Amino acid sequence: MSVETAKRYFELMDSSDAGTEDVLELYAEDAVVKSPRKGVIEGKDEIRQFYEANSEFFVGGEHVMQQFHEDGDTVVCEGLLDGETAAGREFEGIALTDIMTFDSDDKITEFRAYLDYSAILSELPSDDEVPSFHGN
Amino acid sequence: MSVETAKRYFELMDSSDAGTEDVLELYAEDAVVKSPRKGVIEGKDEIRQFYEANSEFFVGGEHVMQQFHEDGDTVVCEGLLDGETAAGREFEGIALTDIMTFDSDDKITEFRAYLDYSAILSELPSDDEVPSFHGN
Repeated sequence: MSVETAKRYFELMDSSDAGTEDVLELYAEDAVVKSPRKGVIEGKDEIRQFYEANSEFFVGGEHVMQQFHEDGDTVVCEGLLDGETAAGREFEGIALTDIMTFDSDDKITEFRAYLDYSAILSELPSDDEVPSFHGN
Repeated sequence: MSVETAKRYFELMDSSDAGTEDVLELYAEDAVVKSPRKGVIEGKDEIRQFYEANSEFFVGGEHVMQQFHEDGDTVVCEGLLDGETAAGREFEGIALTDIMTFDSDDKITEFRAYLDYSAILSELPSDDEVPSFHGN
Protein backbone atom coordinates (compact mmCIF):
# COMPACT_ATOMS: atom_id res chain seq x y z
CA MET A 1 0.00 0.00 0.00
CA SER A 2 2.78 2.44 0.79
CA VAL A 3 3.95 2.71 -2.83
CA GLU A 4 0.35 3.47 -3.83
CA THR A 5 0.22 6.22 -1.20
CA ALA A 6 3.52 7.61 -2.47
CA LYS A 7 2.12 7.71 -6.01
CA ARG A 8 -1.02 9.41 -4.68
CA TYR A 9 1.18 12.08 -3.05
CA PHE A 10 2.62 13.13 -6.42
CA GLU A 11 -0.80 13.09 -8.08
CA LEU A 12 -2.08 15.47 -5.39
CA MET A 13 0.98 17.70 -5.60
CA ASP A 14 0.50 18.12 -9.36
CA SER A 15 -3.29 18.45 -9.34
CA SER A 16 -4.75 21.91 -9.68
CA ASP A 17 -7.88 20.63 -7.91
CA ALA A 18 -6.07 19.36 -4.80
CA GLY A 19 -4.92 21.63 -2.01
CA THR A 20 -2.58 21.55 0.96
CA GLU A 21 -5.19 19.83 3.16
CA ASP A 22 -5.45 16.91 0.72
CA VAL A 23 -1.70 16.41 0.89
CA LEU A 24 -1.72 16.75 4.69
CA GLU A 25 -4.23 13.89 4.99
CA LEU A 26 -1.45 11.55 3.88
CA TYR A 27 0.65 12.54 6.91
CA ALA A 28 0.59 11.21 10.47
CA GLU A 29 -0.07 13.89 13.14
CA ASP A 30 3.49 13.89 14.48
CA ALA A 31 5.17 13.53 11.10
CA VAL A 32 8.55 15.08 10.34
CA VAL A 33 9.63 16.62 7.03
CA LYS A 34 13.31 17.16 6.28
CA SER A 35 14.02 19.59 3.47
CA PRO A 36 17.42 20.83 2.29
CA ARG A 37 16.09 24.39 2.35
CA LYS A 38 13.98 24.48 5.49
CA GLY A 39 15.64 21.85 7.67
CA VAL A 40 13.54 19.82 10.09
CA ILE A 41 9.80 20.54 10.14
CA GLU A 42 7.82 18.81 12.89
CA GLY A 43 4.10 18.22 13.18
CA LYS A 44 1.18 18.92 10.88
CA ASP A 45 0.92 22.65 11.69
CA GLU A 46 4.50 23.33 10.65
CA ILE A 47 4.15 21.01 7.66
CA ARG A 48 1.07 22.98 6.58
CA GLN A 49 3.10 26.21 6.66
CA PHE A 50 5.84 24.51 4.65
CA TYR A 51 3.46 23.46 1.86
CA GLU A 52 1.76 26.85 1.83
CA ALA A 53 5.15 28.56 1.43
CA ASN A 54 5.97 26.10 -1.37
CA SER A 55 2.77 26.88 -3.18
CA GLU A 56 3.73 30.58 -3.16
CA PHE A 57 7.25 29.82 -4.30
CA PHE A 58 6.29 27.53 -7.19
CA VAL A 59 3.59 28.80 -9.55
CA GLY A 60 3.33 25.45 -11.32
CA GLY A 61 4.97 22.08 -11.38
CA GLU A 62 4.78 18.52 -12.55
CA HIS A 63 6.53 15.45 -11.17
CA VAL A 64 7.60 12.81 -13.70
CA MET A 65 8.25 9.93 -11.31
CA GLN A 66 10.34 7.08 -12.66
CA GLN A 67 11.05 4.52 -9.97
CA PHE A 68 9.74 3.56 -6.55
CA HIS A 69 11.97 1.41 -4.31
CA GLU A 70 10.43 -0.22 -1.23
CA ASP A 71 12.43 -1.42 1.77
CA GLY A 72 10.40 -2.27 4.85
CA ASP A 73 8.49 0.85 5.97
CA THR A 74 10.41 3.08 3.56
CA VAL A 75 9.59 4.05 -0.02
CA VAL A 76 12.22 5.83 -2.12
CA CYS A 77 10.66 7.83 -4.96
CA GLU A 78 12.92 8.83 -7.86
CA GLY A 79 11.88 11.17 -10.60
CA LEU A 80 12.10 14.50 -12.36
CA LEU A 81 10.48 17.84 -11.65
CA ASP A 82 9.34 20.39 -14.22
CA GLY A 83 7.95 23.74 -13.19
CA GLU A 84 8.24 27.47 -12.71
CA THR A 85 8.95 29.66 -9.70
CA ALA A 86 7.08 32.81 -8.74
CA ALA A 87 10.29 34.65 -9.63
CA GLY A 88 9.80 33.47 -13.22
CA ARG A 89 12.46 30.81 -13.44
CA GLU A 90 11.31 27.85 -15.53
CA PHE A 91 13.00 24.50 -15.04
CA GLU A 92 12.65 21.05 -16.55
CA GLY A 93 13.92 17.61 -15.68
CA ILE A 94 15.38 18.48 -12.29
CA ALA A 95 16.33 15.17 -10.66
CA LEU A 96 14.73 14.57 -7.29
CA THR A 97 14.38 11.86 -4.69
CA ASP A 98 11.71 11.91 -1.99
CA ILE A 99 12.05 9.30 0.73
CA MET A 100 8.96 8.50 2.82
CA THR A 101 8.55 6.28 5.86
CA PHE A 102 5.10 5.00 6.79
CA ASP A 103 3.37 3.82 9.95
CA SER A 104 1.06 0.79 10.19
CA ASP A 105 -1.90 2.98 9.11
CA ASP A 106 -0.03 3.83 5.89
CA LYS A 107 0.41 7.44 6.99
CA ILE A 108 3.67 9.26 6.24
CA THR A 109 5.73 9.59 9.43
CA GLU A 110 8.83 11.04 7.84
CA PHE A 111 9.47 12.69 4.48
CA ARG A 112 13.00 13.50 3.35
CA ALA A 113 13.44 15.54 0.17
CA TYR A 114 16.56 15.52 -2.01
CA LEU A 115 16.55 18.01 -4.87
CA ASP A 116 19.16 20.06 -6.67
CA TYR A 117 17.94 23.56 -5.88
CA SER A 118 20.86 25.13 -7.73
CA ALA A 119 18.98 24.43 -10.95
CA ILE A 120 15.97 26.29 -9.59
CA LEU A 121 17.18 29.12 -7.43
CA SER A 122 20.35 30.52 -8.77
CA GLU A 123 22.90 30.89 -11.52
CA LEU A 124 26.04 28.79 -11.44
CA PRO A 125 29.46 30.40 -11.17
CA SER A 126 31.17 30.75 -14.53
CA ASP A 127 34.00 28.47 -15.56
CA ASP A 128 36.45 31.33 -15.00
CA GLU A 129 35.72 31.45 -11.30
CA VAL A 130 36.12 27.84 -10.25
CA PRO A 131 37.29 24.57 -11.79
CA SER A 132 34.33 23.39 -13.83
CA PHE A 133 32.30 20.70 -12.19
CA HIS A 134 31.28 19.64 -15.68
CA GLY A 135 34.80 18.44 -16.32
CA ASN A 136 35.19 19.99 -19.73
CA MET B 1 26.90 -7.80 -0.43
CA SER B 2 25.70 -4.75 -2.31
CA VAL B 3 25.21 -2.65 0.83
CA GLU B 4 28.77 -3.54 1.86
CA THR B 5 30.03 -2.40 -1.54
CA ALA B 6 28.05 0.82 -1.20
CA LYS B 7 29.66 1.46 2.20
CA ARG B 8 33.07 0.71 0.70
CA TYR B 9 32.39 3.33 -2.00
CA PHE B 10 32.04 6.08 0.61
CA GLU B 11 35.11 4.89 2.51
CA LEU B 12 37.15 5.13 -0.69
CA MET B 13 35.69 8.53 -1.60
CA ASP B 14 36.70 9.93 1.78
CA SER B 15 40.10 8.26 2.04
CA SER B 16 43.16 10.35 1.28
CA ASP B 17 44.99 7.12 0.41
CA ALA B 18 42.47 5.94 -2.19
CA GLY B 19 42.38 7.31 -5.73
CA THR B 20 40.04 7.38 -8.69
CA GLU B 21 41.17 3.91 -9.85
CA ASP B 22 40.15 2.38 -6.52
CA VAL B 23 36.67 3.84 -6.91
CA LEU B 24 36.47 2.74 -10.56
CA GLU B 25 37.12 -0.89 -9.54
CA LEU B 26 33.66 -0.90 -7.97
CA TYR B 27 32.08 -0.12 -11.37
CA ALA B 28 31.09 -2.45 -14.20
CA GLU B 29 32.75 -1.65 -17.56
CA ASP B 30 29.59 -0.31 -19.17
CA ALA B 31 28.31 1.47 -16.09
CA VAL B 32 26.29 4.68 -16.27
CA VAL B 33 26.50 7.62 -13.84
CA LYS B 34 23.71 10.20 -13.72
CA SER B 35 24.64 13.45 -12.06
CA PRO B 36 22.53 16.59 -11.74
CA ARG B 37 25.48 18.65 -12.94
CA LYS B 38 27.01 16.51 -15.68
CA GLY B 39 24.01 14.56 -16.93
CA VAL B 40 24.50 11.04 -18.23
CA ILE B 41 28.04 9.66 -18.14
CA GLU B 42 28.58 6.32 -19.88
CA GLY B 43 31.43 3.85 -19.56
CA LYS B 44 34.51 3.73 -17.36
CA ASP B 45 36.56 6.22 -19.41
CA GLU B 46 33.95 8.95 -19.06
CA ILE B 47 33.36 8.02 -15.42
CA ARG B 48 37.11 8.36 -14.78
CA GLN B 49 37.03 11.91 -16.22
CA PHE B 50 34.04 12.69 -14.02
CA TYR B 51 35.81 11.64 -10.81
CA GLU B 52 39.00 13.42 -11.83
CA ALA B 53 37.03 16.64 -12.39
CA ASN B 54 35.35 16.14 -9.02
CA SER B 55 38.68 15.75 -7.28
CA GLU B 56 39.75 19.12 -8.70
CA PHE B 57 36.48 20.72 -7.74
CA PHE B 58 36.41 19.48 -4.14
CA VAL B 59 39.58 19.93 -2.10
CA GLY B 60 38.26 17.80 0.74
CA GLY B 61 35.13 16.06 1.81
CA GLU B 62 33.58 13.59 4.19
CA HIS B 63 30.38 11.61 3.81
CA VAL B 64 28.36 10.98 6.97
CA MET B 65 26.10 8.22 5.71
CA GLN B 66 23.00 7.55 7.76
CA GLN B 67 20.80 4.94 6.09
CA PHE B 68 21.08 2.29 3.39
CA HIS B 69 17.85 0.95 1.84
CA GLU B 70 18.03 -2.21 -0.27
CA ASP B 71 15.40 -3.19 -2.85
CA GLY B 72 16.40 -5.99 -5.21
CA ASP B 73 19.51 -4.93 -7.15
CA THR B 74 19.24 -1.34 -5.90
CA VAL B 75 20.79 0.28 -2.83
CA VAL B 76 19.68 3.76 -1.79
CA CYS B 77 22.32 5.54 0.31
CA GLU B 78 21.19 8.51 2.41
CA GLY B 79 23.55 10.78 4.22
CA LEU B 80 25.24 14.13 4.64
CA LEU B 81 28.28 15.66 2.99
CA ASP B 82 30.84 17.97 4.60
CA GLY B 83 33.63 19.51 2.59
CA GLU B 84 35.25 22.40 0.80
CA THR B 85 35.48 23.40 -2.85
CA ALA B 86 38.61 24.57 -4.65
CA ALA B 87 36.89 27.96 -4.79
CA GLY B 88 37.07 28.07 -0.99
CA ARG B 89 33.44 27.42 -0.15
CA GLU B 90 33.11 25.29 2.97
CA PHE B 91 29.90 23.36 3.52
CA GLU B 92 28.58 21.03 6.17
CA GLY B 93 25.63 18.69 6.46
CA ILE B 94 24.49 18.89 2.82
CA ALA B 95 21.82 16.21 2.40
CA LEU B 96 22.54 13.72 -0.36
CA THR B 97 21.19 10.49 -1.76
CA ASP B 98 23.23 8.21 -4.00
CA ILE B 99 21.32 5.37 -5.65
CA MET B 100 23.34 2.43 -6.98
CA THR B 101 22.23 -0.61 -8.97
CA PHE B 102 24.42 -3.71 -9.03
CA ASP B 103 24.98 -6.65 -11.38
CA SER B 104 25.38 -10.27 -10.27
CA ASP B 105 29.13 -9.69 -9.74
CA ASP B 106 28.30 -6.92 -7.24
CA LYS B 107 29.66 -4.26 -9.60
CA ILE B 108 27.89 -0.90 -9.90
CA THR B 109 25.98 -0.74 -13.19
CA GLU B 110 24.24 2.57 -12.54
CA PHE B 111 24.88 5.37 -10.08
CA ARG B 112 22.40 8.22 -9.68
CA ALA B 113 23.38 11.16 -7.48
CA TYR B 114 20.94 13.52 -5.78
CA LEU B 115 22.52 16.47 -3.99
CA ASP B 116 21.54 20.06 -3.33
CA TYR B 117 24.31 21.87 -5.17
CA SER B 118 22.81 25.26 -4.32
CA ALA B 119 24.40 24.91 -0.89
CA ILE B 120 27.78 24.30 -2.48
CA LEU B 121 28.00 26.36 -5.64
CA SER B 122 26.21 29.58 -5.20
CA GLU B 123 24.51 32.15 -3.05
CA LEU B 124 20.74 32.08 -2.72
CA PRO B 125 18.61 34.97 -3.92
CA SER B 126 17.70 37.34 -1.10
CA ASP B 127 14.23 37.36 0.41
CA ASP B 128 13.54 40.63 -1.40
CA GLU B 129 13.81 39.02 -4.82
CA VAL B 130 11.50 36.03 -4.50
CA PRO B 131 8.98 34.69 -2.00
CA SER B 132 11.10 32.97 0.63
CA PHE B 133 11.26 29.23 0.29
CA HIS B 134 11.94 29.14 4.02
CA GLY B 135 8.39 30.26 4.68
CA ASN B 136 9.25 32.89 7.24
